[in-house]
Amino acid sequence: MSSHHIVRDDQEPALIIANGEACSMELLGQLLEWSPLVIVLDSAMERVAALGIKVDVLLGDFDRDFNPDEFIRTQHPIEIVYAPDQEKTDLEKAFDYLIERGIPAVNVIWATGRRTDHTISNLTNIVRYRGLLSIVILDDYSKVFLLPRNFRKWYPADSILSLIPVGTVNGISSENLVYELQNETLTMGFRSGNSNASRREGLVSIIHQEGDLLLMECND
Amino acid sequence: MSSHHIVRDDQEPALIIANGEACSMELLGQLLEWSPLVIVLDSAMERVAALGIKVDVLLGDFDRDFNPDEFIRTQHPIEIVYAPDQEKTDLEKAFDYLIERGIPAVNVIWATGRRTDHTISNLTNIVRYRGLLSIVILDDYSKVFLLPRNFRKWYPADSILSLIPVGTVNGISSENLVYELQNETLTMGFRSGNSNASRREGLVSIIHQEGDLLLMECND
Repeated sequence: MSSHHIVRDDQEPALIIANGEACSMELLGQLLEWSPLVIVLDSAMERVAALGIKVDVLLGDFDRDFNPDEFIRTQHPIEIVYAPDQEKTDLEKAFDYLIERGIPAVNVIWATGRRTDHTISNLTNIVRYRGLLSIVILDDYSKVFLLPRNFRKWYPADSILSLIPVGTVNGISSENLVYELQNETLTMGFRSGNSNASRREGLVSIIHQEGDLLLMECND
Repeated sequence: MSSHHIVRDDQEPALIIANGEACSMELLGQLLEWSPLVIVLDSAMERVAALGIKVDVLLGDFDRDFNPDEFIRTQHPIEIVYAPDQEKTDLEKAFDYLIERGIPAVNVIWATGRRTDHTISNLTNIVRYRGLLSIVILDDYSKVFLLPRNFRKWYPADSILSLIPVGTVNGISSENLVYELQNETLTMGFRSGNSNASRREGLVSIIHQEGDLLLMECND
């Protein structure tokens, strides 16, 4: 069965390739291995097609001298989603597309690097999809996702974990971190929780009462 | 007079070279042209020295297999500031150093790229230095600084300007932007003001009543 004829039940995480800095081929390969539904944002399509990747959905407002039509033939079958809404980024439109299609989870790459305003909004905007779509943003250095109120996950010892409050987050408590938190408050710009780490191999627990808290698992 | 014997009155902006992704040599050259006081953070010193740049202050906790002593001879005269405080980043310690020395302004490069948690905290942490130190963070794509309550500056037409609220910012109004704001609220993660632009050549005005608002001038 070729990858052009994958039968999907749409319950596996989709893959969005955004329009920022490309990640390593190794990370890209790992994510493509599971034959996810692949959505590419706007003119990133040119860079993605050059890598020989089969794309399922091409989404954008196509306003920057980029013509999606040429890919109808070379990437057949492909769905072209014209999304002109100027109030949303292409990444937000892709999230909306997945929600509408009933897909529960997505990995996102090429969403960081280059222009920092895009990086910051791509990362922090995931908070508004709480309960709607499970989003993980990956690059060569890290993996970021929104924490549920009660989070528990197994980590090897010394795994670098950064807590990033989007706004103010209250009532944060942890177990098995090097710098433990006990009913504490983190506020972006004033007190953040960068470069914490798991203390020993085992479950790490992070709970918070209020606010939106991102966790970044760092590789380096 | 060689650059080793510059007489400074410490009223010009200093230059901090942080430990993120290197910028273009063009940007670096522009900033060095004014012979600023150059502060380098921790092991970035190795990359900076390799570029043949004379450094005035080397600051860090020097805990990662990096020995600052070798630069005492090669960079003479150089001030080595050992700053072990684990509650602050090296960049924050460098800001504190400048404030203590009475220097009013600083440009910062190599503070973005690579690990996104560092990028986000480096950018958003400048809000806590309001009134203490005038900070501009530059990379190859943009220039970021904290806005005063009333901001006016001349821009060419179509200059891309991103408004980044650190937390929630209320009462934002603008003049001469493509997407004007009228007593509006921006909240990180929920409503940001990315990729706005000056409408026509001339003064752009951005006022805000409450909160911390960054402005990013984008090049691309």
